[in-house]
Amino acid sequence: MKQIDVMKDLLADNNKIADANRKLLSDKGIFTINLVGSPGAGKTSLLERLIRKFKDEIKIVVIEGDLYTTNDAQRIEQEGIEVIQLNTKGACHLEANMIAEALADLNLEEVDLLVIENVGNLVCTASFDLGEDMKITLLSVTEGSDKPLKYPIIFQNSKGVVVNKVDLLEHTDFSIKQLYQDLKNLKEDIKVFEVSCVKEEGILEFGDYLKGKIKTKQLATRSS
Amino acid sequence: MKQIDVMKDLLADNNKIADANRKLLSDKGIFTINLVGSPGAGKTSLLERLIRKFKDEIKIVVIEGDLYTTNDAQRIEQEGIEVIQLNTKGACHLEANMIAEALADLNLEEVDLLVIENVGNLVCTASFDLGEDMKITLLSVTEGSDKPLKYPIIFQNSKGVVVNKVDLLEHTDFSIKQLYQDLKNLKEDIKVFEVSCVKEEGILEFGDYLKGKIKTKQLATRSS
Repeated sequence: MKQIDVMKDLLADNNKIADANRKLLSDKGIFTINLVGSPGAGKTSLLERLIRKFKDEIKIVVIEGDLYTTNDAQRIEQEGIEVIQLNTKGACHLEANMIAEALADLNLEEVDLLVIENVGNLVCTASFDLGEDMKITLLSVTEGSDKPLKYPIIFQNSKGVVVNKVDLLEHTDFSIKQLYQDLKNLKEDIKVFEVSCVKEEGILEFGDYLKGKIKTKQLATRSS
Repeated sequence: MKQIDVMKDLLADNNKIADANRKLLSDKGIFTINLVGSPGAGKTSLLERLIRKFKDEIKIVVIEGDLYTTNDAQRIEQEGIEVIQLNTKGACHLEANMIAEALADLNLEEVDLLVIENVGNLVCTASFDLGEDMKITLLSVTEGSDKPLKYPIIFQNSKGVVVNKVDLLEHTDFSIKQLYQDLKNLKEDIKVFEVSCVKEEGILEFGDYLKGKIKTKQLATRSS
């Protein structure tokens, strides 16, 4: 009897396309992040603030993933940035072939940073490589500090964690200390940023980190 | 060429088992809710408060869904309630066959209410019937009032919405008015409860609603 492991085949196909996306983006010296997090963690809010503070220094383009609406892309467009909306029509995560289509439609000349905002989901988005340089997980303090242990795969697959809504810390039982400890146990070298989009705190530190990554990538591209 | 619609087959198989679960539970006069929501919306906190206020009046048992940990089941067990932990090992939602297995292990005699706490996910949990009488979606105000339009399927498939963390309303731009309007447009007869688990507000109203549903179900069971 022949058995087909649908998930394994699906991931292998996805990863091939992701590698092609990564090559295309690397050839152009574009640093790419796959921004993941729960619904309402503040992914679009973080992007808005990042764009406002850094768009004069770095050229940013955005791919927005959402089930049905264009709300998030409209918000990003208001910041004067080129954005493509991908609607998954109910599917729970973006896949590399969707990104390949979007890349064909984007003007990638002179772009420094591509941000892919994934569907709000801490589970399904964890396993699908889109061709990014790094996944960044956004966790809001109102979700609770137990989330890295409850959803470990997405944190293990991320190089950075942005802890959003720190302005609400005093109203929750979120433990920053516990969070750092649990993240360290999951992944030794994960980078953590404490941010409040509402109070515009921590955006500069996160943006400066990305600027460093962009510079390293572009130097590597030029010398290769 | 033969094409196999994996998702359609999967849902059809799931629904058969869900119907068998529903029959088993109905024969015993047990009212069942499938509690869904984003990670950190407060599903376990709501359950803790509900159990504390109502466990002397109604016999409650719980099935906890989580990727890997037993944290939530431990919290429920501390309330003196029979609970079974289902670990999906990374899968993004519970399916009816997992519930069938748990039901075989639970003592269902004299039980009034079964609560199934699903994996924290607003997308994948929407489509899988577990054999429940109703889905209840928990939405916390810190996630934003735009969520029903962004994740419409889960709200359309729910008979009730519990809006949690209303104590944080003043610190967010959440619009209760917009929420009611959007929910009404999605589904005319959806029932909404405003709750604060931290301040223990709105728990009685939600519990009384469930008590009414339990009574109706048990009258129907006895007369059939």
